[in-house]
Amino acid sequence: MQPPVPSIWVDGEPATALPLPDRGLDFGDGLFETLLLQLGHAHFLDYHLQRLSSGLQRLAFPDCLARCESALRTAAQGLAELPWAALRITVSRGAGPRGYAPPPDATPRIVVTAAPLQQDHRDPPAPLDVAVAQIRWSAQPALAGLKHLNRLEQVIAARQATAAGADDALMLDAAGNVCSLAAANLFIVESGCLYTPPLADCGILGTRRRLVIERLAPACGLSVLEQSLSLQRVQDAEEVFCSNSLRGLQPVGSCDTRRWQDHPVARRLHQAYVDVLARDFDGGTA
Amino acid sequence: MQPPVPSIWVDGEPATALPLPDRGLDFGDGLFETLLLQLGHAHFLDYHLQRLSSGLQRLAFPDCLARCESALRTAAQGLAELPWAALRITVSRGAGPRGYAPPPDATPRIVVTAAPLQQDHRDPPAPLDVAVAQIRWSAQPALAGLKHLNRLEQVIAARQATAAGADDALMLDAAGNVCSLAAANLFIVESGCLYTPPLADCGILGTRRRLVIERLAPACGLSVLEQSLSLQRVQDAEEVFCSNSLRGLQPVGSCDTRRWQDHPVARRLHQAYVDVLARDFDGGTA
Repeated sequence: MQPPVPSIWVDGEPATALPLPDRGLDFGDGLFETLLLQLGHAHFLDYHLQRLSSGLQRLAFPDCLARCESALRTAAQGLAELPWAALRITVSRGAGPRGYAPPPDATPRIVVTAAPLQQDHRDPPAPLDVAVAQIRWSAQPALAGLKHLNRLEQVIAARQATAAGADDALMLDAAGNVCSLAAANLFIVESGCLYTPPLADCGILGTRRRLVIERLAPACGLSVLEQSLSLQRVQDAEEVFCSNSLRGLQPVGSCDTRRWQDHPVARRLHQAYVDVLARDFDGGTA
Repeated sequence: MQPPVPSIWVDGEPATALPLPDRGLDFGDGLFETLLLQLGHAHFLDYHLQRLSSGLQRLAFPDCLARCESALRTAAQGLAELPWAALRITVSRGAGPRGYAPPPDATPRIVVTAAPLQQDHRDPPAPLDVAVAQIRWSAQPALAGLKHLNRLEQVIAARQATAAGADDALMLDAAGNVCSLAAANLFIVESGCLYTPPLADCGILGTRRRLVIERLAPACGLSVLEQSLSLQRVQDAEEVFCSNSLRGLQPVGSCDTRRWQDHPVARRLHQAYVDVLARDFDGGTA
């Protein structure tokens, strides 16, 4: 039986609307995660919950991690018939009086939405065309790395990419170095070594970025270094690929006028990703 | 007859919830305005609509300014019994598929909320205690000046101010100069002249800031200059005051350890503000 598409739960109950007022809408006062779901199994749930926990602490939310995990598990269990699905959890600080100051007695509100995905995530993804966005990702160490709800810069960058006929935007940081794509982390390959920007001042610390660094690159015998990357260095790289929870490891086929034909390293990493997905699935359903 | 508090309208209809999905919640993809309402008259509606229009254009929203004005006027008319009220309009890009890129066929969603205010805005407001926030207001020329929904930096700053026992946070920009308070624009007085930061890279171009520059300062025979202001210069100023739609012109009584006893210039400007409020009210109800 297919669920209605998309399915939405608010605070654990099926819903179609968000009670107002809500500080998530009012100020973007909240966080989100987007998980890959396979037959009801939420992949790398631990990575998502760890980043969410870090965000809840940095935004000084009341502890609601157990509620978040429960909401995700309940929603996932109801989607066991779907081969692949995207599961988004949005955690807002909930209701509050007018004004920016968070109410001391805030009760976070948890919204979960699910939508089926057509693509089999074990298939190698097609290369992506990216365009360099005019807008830069501003420097804000207090929020860098978090997947919070203030995403207007990425919205504008994505619109600029769409206008350029590209699939995603390559975003520079305030200093003019490469940060990431609007919707995915970025890696380059030079002489068999991987490099990715450090993201101390901007960007999102992706779960698949962490997976590449901690598990996939080691499994392929590759080293990974976090380094500031100029746009020229990205353009000159042997290979460029990106990562996020719904794309997995996806080659970048072009960046403005630069084109890459082959992606042997990204393909090896994708195969390692497929292996890890299978082990994560077996572990999750054992 | 008092309306329920707060009162909420979504797309012109009384409501208690926001239909999901909504890009305002998902990404902060939207704008807002907070208006001062007096017996059903929305003060300086033209200033608010002009800033909103500028934001809608910069975010490339479909044109919905006439719908916004209509929603505000309808809500205001229903609140004619309230001596003073706050009216907030939130314009989100509405529903959309997953992903940052705005859908080409977006239909903006308009949320209006109203709440009565106890204070008579003709009374001179009590001085405000402010504390310098640790978090800085990041530089983003593409969004500077707009009252958009990405307000986490102000939420964090306001929390820091609350923790310091202050009423609001004084925020520095990325370069370490003074930007504004978290919730109000800032002016200093030196030798009978007003100075306020230019806000090209961060901050919100407040309607009352504009009113001070265009009407109140001239009415008081004062000149206003937009200048970068160091924190030291603010601390050394003869007077400091702030402005926003619900506070009007409010003196700053202290900033960390610095205290100001008298606010003759802010008081003169407040009286000019009261006069302009009266004329705006008469004009609006004529």
